[in-house]
Amino acid sequence: MKRRTFIKNSSLTALGISAIGVMDLYSKGFVFGNNFRVNEKRIANRIVELSKFGMDEKGHGYRVAFTKGDIEGRAWFIELMKNSGLEVSIDTGGNIIGKRKGKNPLFKSIAFGSHIDMVPDGGNYDGTLGSISALEVIEVLNENKMITEHPLEVLIFASEEGETIGSKAMTGQLSAEELKQVSESGLTIAAGIRAIGGNPDDIQSCIRKNGDIHAFLELHIEQGGILENENIQIGVVEGIIGRIAWDITVEGVANHAGTTPMNMRQDALLAASKLIIAVNEVITGVKGNQVGTIGKIYAFPGAYNVIPGKVTLGLEIRDLSMDKIKMLFSEVEKRAAIIATDSKTKISFQQQPIVIKPALTNKALQQKINASAKGLGLTTKFMQSGAFHDSSQMSTIAPMAMIFVPSVGGISHSYKEFTKTVDMTNGANVLLQTILSVDMG
Amino acid sequence: MKRRTFIKNSSLTALGISAIGVMDLYSKGFVFGNNFRVNEKRIANRIVELSKFGMDEKGHGYRVAFTKGDIEGRAWFIELMKNSGLEVSIDTGGNIIGKRKGKNPLFKSIAFGSHIDMVPDGGNYDGTLGSISALEVIEVLNENKMITEHPLEVLIFASEEGETIGSKAMTGQLSAEELKQVSESGLTIAAGIRAIGGNPDDIQSCIRKNGDIHAFLELHIEQGGILENENIQIGVVEGIIGRIAWDITVEGVANHAGTTPMNMRQDALLAASKLIIAVNEVITGVKGNQVGTIGKIYAFPGAYNVIPGKVTLGLEIRDLSMDKIKMLFSEVEKRAAIIATDSKTKISFQQQPIVIKPALTNKALQQKINASAKGLGLTTKFMQSGAFHDSSQMSTIAPMAMIFVPSVGGISHSYKEFTKTVDMTNGANVLLQTILSVDMG
Repeated sequence: MKRRTFIKNSSLTALGISAIGVMDLYSKGFVFGNNFRVNEKRIANRIVELSKFGMDEKGHGYRVAFTKGDIEGRAWFIELMKNSGLEVSIDTGGNIIGKRKGKNPLFKSIAFGSHIDMVPDGGNYDGTLGSISALEVIEVLNENKMITEHPLEVLIFASEEGETIGSKAMTGQLSAEELKQVSESGLTIAAGIRAIGGNPDDIQSCIRKNGDIHAFLELHIEQGGILENENIQIGVVEGIIGRIAWDITVEGVANHAGTTPMNMRQDALLAASKLIIAVNEVITGVKGNQVGTIGKIYAFPGAYNVIPGKVTLGLEIRDLSMDKIKMLFSEVEKRAAIIATDSKTKISFQQQPIVIKPALTNKALQQKINASAKGLGLTTKFMQSGAFHDSSQMSTIAPMAMIFVPSVGGISHSYKEFTKTVDMTNGANVLLQTILSVDMG
Repeated sequence: MKRRTFIKNSSLTALGISAIGVMDLYSKGFVFGNNFRVNEKRIANRIVELSKFGMDEKGHGYRVAFTKGDIEGRAWFIELMKNSGLEVSIDTGGNIIGKRKGKNPLFKSIAFGSHIDMVPDGGNYDGTLGSISALEVIEVLNENKMITEHPLEVLIFASEEGETIGSKAMTGQLSAEELKQVSESGLTIAAGIRAIGGNPDDIQSCIRKNGDIHAFLELHIEQGGILENENIQIGVVEGIIGRIAWDITVEGVANHAGTTPMNMRQDALLAASKLIIAVNEVITGVKGNQVGTIGKIYAFPGAYNVIPGKVTLGLEIRDLSMDKIKMLFSEVEKRAAIIATDSKTKISFQQQPIVIKPALTNKALQQKINASAKGLGLTTKFMQSGAFHDSSQMSTIAPMAMIFVPSVGGISHSYKEFTKTVDMTNGANVLLQTILSVDMG
């Protein structure tokens, strides 16, 4: 679909600019023929306002999905959405939907947004930046009396931190079984959805079919330290990496730490240590952005004076390619077999049932994000998302893309999470310009 | 003091043997001029009888000090001691003492024995072999109407497994503070001592001064696999190794396992793994029988998807030389400093307050044990004790030595603990002959 209804010669002429001078316009802040800019102060103020819901006396946040802070924060946000002229509803999955009409009623909507719930003691930028910036896009369009060709939809997903509950519901991936599970709030997911105005008994009604949405965009903080480290302003997300996790058991022989000579030991912890190093070597031994982590370890019996007879470990490997994850794991298995033989231990792997598939972003949308950022004079980097997002789920029903901005120190899921106002503003401007670019086709 | 009152020409003449033929006697079972032998069946039967006290329906033992099984087992043992003609008393530390008069009332006693308490779910040989064999020595001497020059004392120590409580009391090393601590039985140590007939209010009364005892001997199962592995019948213990333990903390940075690139991590568990391997390399990198163990590990926060920010470890190093333990630890510290720098982590060590000093055995006694074993046609090995024993405490007041016999599979502190009857019998015969040898001076 090629439509050039927004940037056209008549518009440029009306602005007194010749087509030849378009490149010069970029340097003057004209991107895709407009100089619309988000309001930095409004974004910064709203980040602060939203952070107050669920905040404790220490200034730490507790806006966990379905709890008081989440419910009050949503109410505040809905009020702002209504004030901006959006037609607001809550779907049966508990997602907040704010609609703005476009010029062409036959066009599918361009959707964008994020979430406002957080992990316990979480930060004030994860999700909230994308949510407040989505609303900011509407505010700026209103201020500029700009009506897009496509209808627009601001989507604020329910319980992203509870494993993307709202976006799973919207994309038909929330099972009846999962609804019965108890969420971080203490409520079952079903009860939680009800608490925020959804209807778990009619969860099917919120499903959006493949093709219902023209494109989905999400602005988010990186939650890692790459952009800050490389001094880059905008991350163009190529995909959200997939993940497989395994439970590992290393079995040796528990024995007396005083009476068992070094050469007669079958020390499960020594073997596990070699495996931890081997995993690191395998993951870093090939090119690419794959990550592999052993985050859990238990040694049994776990006494100073007993050689560990058994060690259990938790391993996860993430990459944009499922094949690469499997290849890397196969290398880990080979190394484990050698370690087991050398150390007279037994090493076994049990894959966890939940496998998260990678979600690739739409290449045309990536290019639009990159062009928008460049047009704004911002530096960009094509990169992966190591964290999961509602965008993963949305990619199953619509072309999807994500915009990243730097996280200071790469810290996230912590009250120490921070993103500079200038970076938030840059991200929101890229979101705005990308939406306008997508609208132009 | 040189006395040859037992083997003398007149005795040999009485047996119809010329002095020249003494070496031949060894092959006929004459050791130190006698052919006294312990009763294999009596030992084996008494091991089984004693194992019944505190045994549960699964056949596992619970003769933990101060509990019903311990109290009943002690009563049974005291009855046997009395039946053997020993003058039995319980000292204020709860130790059972069985005295047998010698020919020379001016001589100090030769003491020998062990303990009959066990760890929870413990084995039937640790301590009990040395206790039953000590009584067996008395039985054999009775049967042979043999009166030694020195008085003899069978010592059955209270709560060896509760950190050698009885022998600490006897050697003046049990503090008022320790008496207040709660033992495995649930009773305080003071209450436990009272429960087995001691008197914690008068604990000083049981102290034996340096020089009070001529020699102390203990027969014990090895609790390791060296003798079995090398197919050797008798271990001549050169000393009980000392021990220092440390708590180690490795501090990195906890971070998101998906969003943190491999080259930006400060993974405390990866650093800890390198340290575990380094400890193993340091300990095995120099000659000797030193052992070093990391038996405890905890990783924080301990989730699949979080890079560990902190790891705590428990390290212990044991050797017969305190200087060597300190030298090895100093090498571990050096390796840790390199690992910390390379991995951008901080590694710190905190030495635990309880330091167990090595206890060397008396060299003359070692030679007597070795000669007794050789005289009985048994193979011997000079070795260290990796486990702690009442003998450690006794070495502070008397020349001390220990005799080891093989543990099947090196297993101890487990209901799977096992020592063959033939090995128990060998050990008891070596104990008997060593006592007679010591008695001869």
